Amino acid sequence: MTELWLIGIGTGNPAHVTREGWQAIREAGAILVPEKGAGKDDLAGLRYAIIEEAEASAQVIPFEMPVRDESLPYDTRVARWHDEIALRWQAAMDGTDGPVALLVWGDPGLYDSTLRIAERLSPAPRLRVIPGITALQALTAAHAIPFNTVNGPVTVTTGRRLRDHGWPDGAETLVVMLDGECSFERLPPEDLTIWWGAYLGMENELLEAGPLAEAGPRIKAARAEARAAHGWIMDTYLLRKTTG
Amino acid sequence: MTELWLIGIGTGNPAHVTREGWQAIREAGAILVPEKGAGKDDLAGLRYAIIEEAEASAQVIPFEMPVRDESLPYDTRVARWHDEIALRWQAAMDGTDGPVALLVWGDPGLYDSTLRIAERLSPAPRLRVIPGITALQALTAAHAIPFNTVNGPVTVTTGRRLRDHGWPDGAETLVVMLDGECSFERLPPEDLTIWWGAYLGMENELLEAGPLAEAGPRIKAARAEARAAHGWIMDTYLLRKTTG
Repeated sequence: MTELWLIGIGTGNPAHVTREGWQAIREAGAILVPEKGAGKDDLAGLRYAIIEEAEASAQVIPFEMPVRDESLPYDTRVARWHDEIALRWQAAMDGTDGPVALLVWGDPGLYDSTLRIAERLSPAPRLRVIPGITALQALTAAHAIPFNTVNGPVTVTTGRRLRDHGWPDGAETLVVMLDGECSFERLPPEDLTIWWGAYLGMENELLEAGPLAEAGPRIKAARAEARAAHGWIMDTYLLRKTTG
Repeated sequence: MTELWLIGIGTGNPAHVTREGWQAIREAGAILVPEKGAGKDDLAGLRYAIIEEAEASAQVIPFEMPVRDESLPYDTRVARWHDEIALRWQAAMDGTDGPVALLVWGDPGLYDSTLRIAERLSPAPRLRVIPGITALQALTAAHAIPFNTVNGPVTVTTGRRLRDHGWPDGAETLVVMLDGECSFERLPPEDLTIWWGAYLGMENELLEAGPLAEAGPRIKAARAEARAAHGWIMDTYLLRKTTG
């Protein structure tokens, strides 16, 4: 049975990797590295930099990421895409020796498809999941703010859900992941404070915070500018109600 | 101005510490270690083990944690307790040289008082927050499950809130922290699956999972037994609706 290690590597800073993750990178027999094509080269480059800095002895196997079929409805599109990625993993793993590792941005459990793709492999590999620092933690650490209020709840959601469903009932703190469209603009900004971060933990980290009415437009502009300059952006934000 | 470093150290496994955290432990001028008294010695012991393994050159300063005044209402009790801890930090930091560090279980931003206590210090220190692996990530990694469903939201809450308010409106996945009373027992168990873990990442890690109706009583028994054996327990769980 193949061993498959899903190693959370944090948000792009090699120092985010845990000691457990670092050791696993060094001990893996093979490491699969997705290549996403134009504009995403920085991300593959970061993975290679981590592999090199860890002095991994693994066979490093790049594989090309498939393209999503945007003509399909969302759920089908994602399911087919995962099927195709699983086939590519399988092809890439063929003939490798020892545990096969994937380096996963953030944590393999949080808004990441890696576990769902791994379930599609046949025969099923023995899975080992190594937690990593998520964008949530990198965000709250960079701003030196608590995730929650005292005994308060936090809802973690996606940009898509925020657009489709608005502010969740009863939520006090909302963390939004995977938002490519500044979906906070759809919210009535009164009584909301935002803490935003992009390229968290990396050299070009950007931070903005303030009342949503004032900080929202600043974030939108900073995001567009950074995205144009780098060709890609990874960002996240936390919104908190300032009054009950 | 004093520098205060809040270093997330994960859930008790020294391998959970990130490379950034490890480096900070080695570079700190002083490390404050809370001593919680009887039954919590394992926890102070784990901090000392991490400091030793990191070969920290810091001055290690134990301080006694104050006791909460249970006669006060919850909010006042917590606020007074934080005031008192801040005074003890201040006393312990007196005369130290170089950055002062605190090793925080999990992540300093997530259901932890450290940031709120730090705000009470006067003069205000320069804060550096180093993210750490939380119990949420250790839990989902140990069970090799995703935190969220595809594009789904997750609510993070406390045992107290679950008891007082029940299942949050619209929640699909619920992660419960700081629950000393098996508050999942208050929920109608139909259509709920639970994944539970205690001492996550540690040698004596315990895991249970299954439909809440079946796994709930097993968890209650395992929790009581483990708590009696060790004198303390740190645990958390994730609940997911199995149908809409």
